[in-house]
Amino acid sequence: MKINPVEIILAKRNGAKIGKEALSAFIRGYLDGAIPDYQMSALLMAIYFQGMDKDEIQALTLCYIDSGQRIVFTGDLPTADKHSTGGVGDKISLMLAPIAAACGLYVPMISGRGLGHTGGTLDKLESIPGFQTRYDTAGFQQMVERQGLAMVGQSATLVPADKMIYALRDVTATVESSGLITASIMSKKIAEGARSLVIDLKVGSGAFMPDLAHADVLAESLIDTGAGFGQKVSVVFSNMNSPLGQYVGNALEVIEAIEYLKGNPLPDTEEITNALVTQMLLNAGLATDPTQAQTKIDQVMQSGKALQKFEEMVIGQGGDPRVIENYALFDGARYEVPVKAERDGFVGHIDARQIGYALIRIHAGRMKVSDVLDYGSGAHLMTKIGNRVKAGETIGTVFANDESKAIEVSQLIRAAYHISPEPVSDQPLILKIRTSQ
Amino acid sequence: MKINPVEIILAKRNGAKIGKEALSAFIRGYLDGAIPDYQMSALLMAIYFQGMDKDEIQALTLCYIDSGQRIVFTGDLPTADKHSTGGVGDKISLMLAPIAAACGLYVPMISGRGLGHTGGTLDKLESIPGFQTRYDTAGFQQMVERQGLAMVGQSATLVPADKMIYALRDVTATVESSGLITASIMSKKIAEGARSLVIDLKVGSGAFMPDLAHADVLAESLIDTGAGFGQKVSVVFSNMNSPLGQYVGNALEVIEAIEYLKGNPLPDTEEITNALVTQMLLNAGLATDPTQAQTKIDQVMQSGKALQKFEEMVIGQGGDPRVIENYALFDGARYEVPVKAERDGFVGHIDARQIGYALIRIHAGRMKVSDVLDYGSGAHLMTKIGNRVKAGETIGTVFANDESKAIEVSQLIRAAYHISPEPVSDQPLILKIRTSQ
Repeated sequence: MKINPVEIILAKRNGAKIGKEALSAFIRGYLDGAIPDYQMSALLMAIYFQGMDKDEIQALTLCYIDSGQRIVFTGDLPTADKHSTGGVGDKISLMLAPIAAACGLYVPMISGRGLGHTGGTLDKLESIPGFQTRYDTAGFQQMVERQGLAMVGQSATLVPADKMIYALRDVTATVESSGLITASIMSKKIAEGARSLVIDLKVGSGAFMPDLAHADVLAESLIDTGAGFGQKVSVVFSNMNSPLGQYVGNALEVIEAIEYLKGNPLPDTEEITNALVTQMLLNAGLATDPTQAQTKIDQVMQSGKALQKFEEMVIGQGGDPRVIENYALFDGARYEVPVKAERDGFVGHIDARQIGYALIRIHAGRMKVSDVLDYGSGAHLMTKIGNRVKAGETIGTVFANDESKAIEVSQLIRAAYHISPEPVSDQPLILKIRTSQ
Repeated sequence: MKINPVEIILAKRNGAKIGKEALSAFIRGYLDGAIPDYQMSALLMAIYFQGMDKDEIQALTLCYIDSGQRIVFTGDLPTADKHSTGGVGDKISLMLAPIAAACGLYVPMISGRGLGHTGGTLDKLESIPGFQTRYDTAGFQQMVERQGLAMVGQSATLVPADKMIYALRDVTATVESSGLITASIMSKKIAEGARSLVIDLKVGSGAFMPDLAHADVLAESLIDTGAGFGQKVSVVFSNMNSPLGQYVGNALEVIEAIEYLKGNPLPDTEEITNALVTQMLLNAGLATDPTQAQTKIDQVMQSGKALQKFEEMVIGQGGDPRVIENYALFDGARYEVPVKAERDGFVGHIDARQIGYALIRIHAGRMKVSDVLDYGSGAHLMTKIGNRVKAGETIGTVFANDESKAIEVSQLIRAAYHISPEPVSDQPLILKIRTSQ
């Protein structure tokens, strides 16, 4: 189909629906260089304002998938994956995938890197000496079929259209569109061969989705699009009003995940992980109800099978499995600077975004894609919402290899804790769950 | 000022106002290549949706002006210009400028070329053998000061920011924004040194502005912006429901304008031209009321002084003045093909846009900037709205150098005439006039 790009931009700008063929021609034109960045960015901004309907989102998702390879697992493997809209201290993938694989699921997880205030699973895993995340499609598929799970980066042959367009959205203020977000998430999760998908949709001031109403629109779009491709999708709406777990930082979070898999409790992270794995087991038919799913989870945790799956993955991807017993093999930090409470009172709101940005100064996160990370740096944040604190009490610790920067970060984290004179009751972690019919 | 372009796009996308310094830094960044096309086009689309307030339009206009040279005429010359939002058969500039100059005004007219269905004054003038339209700022200023009028193309040194951004808007469906239109028109008209400006704002189905409500928003924005730069602006809202005059085509329209200046009547064009020149004379203080202005216009028409100004301009810009007496010196057309009425009835609506596009096939207009024109081709359209016609009656003539194309165009023009069985009353040509206080 021969198209006039200006007419398509104009039609979307004026609120019209873009047909399947026209959309596909536009995306192909962009990929082969016939349509320049400036026309794509104008279309993206028009989509931001006018939205896309169910058919258009479906068509765009298909365009993304068709731009590259698509993995088809042999047999009827119960493949399932999880996607998170991104948080601070969110190491759930590191626990969820081994638990799910130990329960009999196959988890083909394509993960991302940290940018801005949010961390990335690939960066965390690469803090394990030797751990590899670059695999081609065939290598990735083999690992998943052999060991039940693998966590790799997006290869150039998987949904390249999304890769290019996401990079453009990032620099043109067109990220926050539920249609574009849906196509970006779902294309990757369908192309990677996951038969079902659970989404950890963070809601709250520190998250991508400011409120439940916006989150509901996105959830419906994700579920509908999955249905169009025969993929079962569940969305767990989780409250994002403080960092998850107690540690933020790459090696620190891997250690925390290992500790959890060894049986050490981690209340908030556990609640969300269990809810997500439960949905995965239900969608794959490996459990008939949430109680049965929870029993399976408890079994693989108690038997050590979940930890064993984690070890298999580390070995399978070239990492040093001795880290599981010897945390000294991770990069460390020379300096520890305490974070002290500003005043007496109760921890109200914790600004997770502000903490994420502060930690970039000690290279626990990155501002631009090219920034180099310090895997050993980060923070221990043991104080949670609702906790009573006294002025000057240690509420956290910053770990870094630059002492003056560590002091700066400690002060910025202190400012991210809002301490109220009145008792504060904690909010529920899981707000609701929506799932395909 | 150092800016983050993404933050500025994001702010506008979210409906915020962009500050003067930020806007100016964005435009400068774009001009020097630091900000790429794709960020500019995203900003333009965000502006399309969120609009700009008075201050932002004023600031953008100033950015455009400051990107190049600004002409300052010597002394207190009563400089005045006209701008038209574009029409089919619109040869008003060719008559208005000589009349205005004959009345004592100085008209520094920077004109454009035809594109799509609308024609351009520069193309029409270049159908006169030898006529030059490329002058630098100093040469243009000298001609205006010497002969009272000049019509040239936009030089590279005059508002280059508008030139670049207009080219980008054209290919990203971001033309139709009243704020962007205002900055584009007003920056040129202020930089060229016109102390007052009259705008022929075409309203109607065939025009840029579909209805009076949209036209009113643009008119107010033009008047306000002019006021901010000390320029008096009048807006004449004219009905654009049929081609203006009887001829469409480059040489054909110049001949029609010369005929008019020689005293041959041309009712619709005359009414609009007189209304526009009247506003120019009132704004410059060369007339105290419309009656006095009309008397002046009648005098210069009857005395031949207007025609003489036209001749002075042709000579001044290197054209052959003998064309005024000998139309055979213009390019001609080998073939004449009649346009016949489809049925008995009354001419209702005439689709001027459709006629403009049809004439591109015989090179009377162009589809892309690089298309070459045939000055001699065009059409004579003697039948006006309200006229009674009989089936098969000749309602027009196509002039072309390719007979089969001429037949095609004749059929397309026939289809542009909507003939109603009921009598049709013509609509008023001038809908209203708004002017600065």
